[in-house]
Amino acid sequence: MAEEERERLGISPEVRDCIEATSDCYTACAETLNYSLHQVGGIPDLRHLRLLIDCSEACQTTESGMLRASELGVMLAAICVEACEKVAESCRQLDPSDEQLAMCAEVCDHTADCCRRLAV
Amino acid sequence: MAEEERERLGISPEVRDCIEATSDCYTACAETLNYSLHQVGGIPDLRHLRLLIDCSEACQTTESGMLRASELGVMLAAICVEACEKVAESCRQLDPSDEQLAMCAEVCDHTADCCRRLAV
Amino acid sequence: MAEEERERLGISPEVRDCIEATSDCYTACAETLNYSLHQVGGIPDLRHLRLLIDCSEACQTTESGMLRASELGVMLAAICVEACEKVAESCRQLDPSDEQLAMCAEVCDHTADCCRRLAV
Amino acid sequence: MAEEERERLGISPEVRDCIEATSDCYTACAETLNYSLHQVGGIPDLRHLRLLIDCSEACQTTESGMLRASELGVMLAAICVEACEKVAESCRQLDPSDEQLAMCAEVCDHTADCCRRLAV
Repeated sequence: MAEEERERLGISPEVRDCIEATSDCYTACAETLNYSLHQVGGIPDLRHLRLLIDCSEACQTTESGMLRASELGVMLAAICVEACEKVAESCRQLDPSDEQLAMCAEVCDHTADCCRRLAV
Repeated sequence: MAEEERERLGISPEVRDCIEATSDCYTACAETLNYSLHQVGGIPDLRHLRLLIDCSEACQTTESGMLRASELGVMLAAICVEACEKVAESCRQLDPSDEQLAMCAEVCDHTADCCRRLAV
Repeated sequence: MAEEERERLGISPEVRDCIEATSDCYTACAETLNYSLHQVGGIPDLRHLRLLIDCSEACQTTESGMLRASELGVMLAAICVEACEKVAESCRQLDPSDEQLAMCAEVCDHTADCCRRLAV
Repeated sequence: MAEEERERLGISPEVRDCIEATSDCYTACAETLNYSLHQVGGIPDLRHLRLLIDCSEACQTTESGMLRASELGVMLAAICVEACEKVAESCRQLDPSDEQLAMCAEVCDHTADCCRRLAV
């Protein structure tokens, strides 16, 4: 779809970035949830698991809203910022040396940045 | 599950009402979306369709968040209020005599009331 | 919406039962997931958690499909039967005396019955 | 996450392809739904819209299931094949010269191929 066509549908480049970021972030959080449930021999950190579910759902709903230029876009972006910030912090706190958690935190940082631009 | 058990899991009676309301409202909006797409011989009202999708997704995400006592609960409830108010208004504007739209507007009113109590 | 209206939209009484059952089953599984994550002092059973997520998502997708008389209805119903049977079995195996798990198993049994009628 | 780590979590390269494909296909179908609703001056083709919603939901549920190595994986992949094939056919039938529909059909073809390998 040509750029002007996207614009006509209300999808600006900033929104497009946000769509890609939330899509990736959904995948990262869902994957990290599975990873965190499998932590060998340990009792999983419940708040961490809950935040990962929160964030994956917030990203899914936000991506979907952005794709149809929803009137709720700004509110959805604001929830995404909140969810992503919490997950990034939780990942770094739990184990700063864990590769999967570090990757997840990074994806969340990027998504929060993209959504913050729209949430203002 | 006994009432005290629910409380322990962070599900108060107010939140319980909200869970039931958003679950019903998801169903009402999804059903009304299908109904509105089938309007005989007409070009469907695009804003109406979009609002119905917005609201069904907002309700789904909010119900899910409430069920796990999500830290995003207040923000989710606020989005639900917004989405429900817009759908109720749109249903009443489109055709005040339509039975399905009237039912949908009523369910949205009730859900907005339930969520408003949590969003404050 | 009057019964004949529902029929026109392709929603028979059997499908209507299925919509209600999958909606309730989504809620029961999501609630039980939260409950199971909170089991005091224990390492949660990973297969049980995964099945609960499987079943809540299968129910959500099936309800949504039924509400729009989706052509995938039969396949969705078949997945729901499978998911519900697995969760019911897992709940009964884990702790037959647990009230929440017993409630969840019962809801799953009922939903599997409703979906089985459509999946044939 | 290193390749061997993914393997440990039950995510083979074939499943990984499927996760990426269903994620892209969700986005393509949701975007095409919005596009198709906006077709200037026309009455949208209802079956086409319904198939797009079917497929976006099937992709979302399948991606999520694959990410946690769900026991329903094979059934989910089979639904995805069915949904993708129907959307691809519908897009090509509606207007073979439309750029957005052609892109959507191509993404669906690729996703059907990825899922077919797992559905056998």
